[in-house]
Amino acid sequence: MVSKKIKKALEGSSVIRAMFTEGKEMAKKYGAENVYDFSLGNPATPAPEAVKEAIKEILDEKDPMFVHGYMDNSGYEEVRQAIADNLNHRFDTHFDFHNIIMTVGAAGGLNIIFKTILDPGDEVLVFAPYFGEYNNYAANFDAKTVAVNPDIATFQPDLADFEKKFTEKTKAVIINTPNNPTGVVYSDATLKTIAEILNKKQEEYKKEIYLISDEPYRELVYDGLEQNFLTKYYNNTIVGYSFSKSLSLPGERIGYVVVPDEVTDAETVIAGINVSNRTLGYVNAPSLMQLAVAKCLEEKTDVAYYDRNRSMLYTALTEYGYHCFKPEGAFYMWVKSPDEDEDRFVENAKKYHLILVKGGAFCWPGYVRIAYCVSNDTIKNSLPAFKKLAEEYHL
Amino acid sequence: MVSKKIKKALEGSSVIRAMFTEGKEMAKKYGAENVYDFSLGNPATPAPEAVKEAIKEILDEKDPMFVHGYMDNSGYEEVRQAIADNLNHRFDTHFDFHNIIMTVGAAGGLNIIFKTILDPGDEVLVFAPYFGEYNNYAANFDAKTVAVNPDIATFQPDLADFEKKFTEKTKAVIINTPNNPTGVVYSDATLKTIAEILNKKQEEYKKEIYLISDEPYRELVYDGLEQNFLTKYYNNTIVGYSFSKSLSLPGERIGYVVVPDEVTDAETVIAGINVSNRTLGYVNAPSLMQLAVAKCLEEKTDVAYYDRNRSMLYTALTEYGYHCFKPEGAFYMWVKSPDEDEDRFVENAKKYHLILVKGGAFCWPGYVRIAYCVSNDTIKNSLPAFKKLAEEYHL
Repeated sequence: MVSKKIKKALEGSSVIRAMFTEGKEMAKKYGAENVYDFSLGNPATPAPEAVKEAIKEILDEKDPMFVHGYMDNSGYEEVRQAIADNLNHRFDTHFDFHNIIMTVGAAGGLNIIFKTILDPGDEVLVFAPYFGEYNNYAANFDAKTVAVNPDIATFQPDLADFEKKFTEKTKAVIINTPNNPTGVVYSDATLKTIAEILNKKQEEYKKEIYLISDEPYRELVYDGLEQNFLTKYYNNTIVGYSFSKSLSLPGERIGYVVVPDEVTDAETVIAGINVSNRTLGYVNAPSLMQLAVAKCLEEKTDVAYYDRNRSMLYTALTEYGYHCFKPEGAFYMWVKSPDEDEDRFVENAKKYHLILVKGGAFCWPGYVRIAYCVSNDTIKNSLPAFKKLAEEYHL
Repeated sequence: MVSKKIKKALEGSSVIRAMFTEGKEMAKKYGAENVYDFSLGNPATPAPEAVKEAIKEILDEKDPMFVHGYMDNSGYEEVRQAIADNLNHRFDTHFDFHNIIMTVGAAGGLNIIFKTILDPGDEVLVFAPYFGEYNNYAANFDAKTVAVNPDIATFQPDLADFEKKFTEKTKAVIINTPNNPTGVVYSDATLKTIAEILNKKQEEYKKEIYLISDEPYRELVYDGLEQNFLTKYYNNTIVGYSFSKSLSLPGERIGYVVVPDEVTDAETVIAGINVSNRTLGYVNAPSLMQLAVAKCLEEKTDVAYYDRNRSMLYTALTEYGYHCFKPEGAFYMWVKSPDEDEDRFVENAKKYHLILVKGGAFCWPGYVRIAYCVSNDTIKNSLPAFKKLAEEYHL
């Protein structure tokens, strides 16, 4: 009675969400302070005070018919212009409001991009390991993802494998840097080569192939790395952004899509994304929150907070004998499973009240993801548990 | 380069939205006060003051990590429980939080219901005239709508035609009362007969057929009519609701779905809708607005305001010789086109700065919809224009 697709989805539902639910149950049982839940990318720092002030100011100063009313499906023009100006200033781009479409989070953005460009049977290349929801988003439009292997020494993409994975059905490539789940930031050289390969493949197959840059972690980079913006590498780049992490607003579902004028037939793509926003049922991004983020574009998330977690965790776990990849961005650490059976490793971790997510959830088994977007105290208090787990594995 | 479906969608984009855009352009040219834009169902009364107070209170009293953070894909449990309690109190139902899923507006709700129950090729019966977006929502899942004719004397459904339109592919029926675009409220007798036919057809085809009640106008009824809630008529009823009209929050995209326990395998349907909310990219309904509406469930929209518009418009237009259907609910009036060519009538109306939407946009040509959710003054000032238009047609 439910659809065949949903029946299947219910059988293999989100591992991350399942771990989150399990973590909440363990917290009830053992006390929240005794459970170290590293499952979900829920920011650990509160939204900046400026968000609260912005919302109150809007409510006090603007007409509620404007604040809560319908606007164009792409969002308020002044909000889109403010975002364009902010990007231009930071990344030396040349956008105008018409290049920006406000979306219901990055997930909403990716879905309306996919709806606009994907035909059934199309293939979307994605660099493994990757956020498993991409598979569902492509399946929404009867397209499928094709995984590109990583270089397992660095977890930068294996570019030779990338080149091999193109077929005449390839319509898009998703890129996510800083990366979930590895924390890797793709180097300038990697991005240039990806663009070269894309240009070559566009010519070979005589059609547009889109680079879709999923950028929720854009502002979260460490060790003095510069924030990057990918439209400069390749003309047919479409950006999806979310304020979930940068302003700690994941529940609000607010983000945007950027379609630069350099995209082939940009106006048609923009019109398609606008129509998709409506017909897929989003209609428009939440109105009050559109107006609020426009006032907070200069606000910064507390990168230093995550950096403390990153250092403490990486140093300790490496010392205990785990094989960790030092994150350069985002708030995830990628760790080799010391057990050949990663499911067993994740189960064993639970004995010590450590909630980790298996690499299989990111289509790359043999590893686990630790979402260190938790309080500094949670990191500190979890270390003895990680130590005991390491001892169990004789690391 | 855009997908085939989107290419087609761009060719025949929303008539309502196009009229809205044209109205805004005319307003720029002639001055907003000289253009009578009856195109869009954008509420004419502001959100109650209580919404503003609720938002401020939440921001001042609650932890921002809670207010703006992730929660279960179905929404905050306490919000869902508050809505269940409110419905139980008003409609003598027996819901619990698990029967309620918070959604990104009613459009988001309908899409995740459709994703949960529709397989490709399925048919969804819908009573004409109807909101044209239903076609797009069904097409999102490769299903299609099948129109049921109205009784054109009353614009209640033609129930003989309803019964004839079932096939073995029929998976659902959408019902929308109070109705957009006609303003008709389906009678108790009509609803009972619809339920009888549905029960009979379920037995005939040996499968579940869902009644999907799209209820954004639930609270907008006139002439002492009681608000109705449709789950009491038929077991396999799923409700989609939006706060867009009742709290004047259309831009905020906040609503909910109700799956009563009486639905066959209710737990699976609920789980499917929950998963669909995530995988279709909604993830969850906007968090702050969830918390805000939960505090405003006893608030009422200003029905008297719309009632004044309704009476003034109906009385005047009938006097001028138009054939109008007196609305019993919602904020739309359905008027017979005095021109055999309704496109020409809509064009002629524009000469008098009247922006109407043709019946064809609701899959029932020969009529126009007047969205009278405008200011009382707009109604009053528009009457001479309607009069001149009537004179042009020698009514």
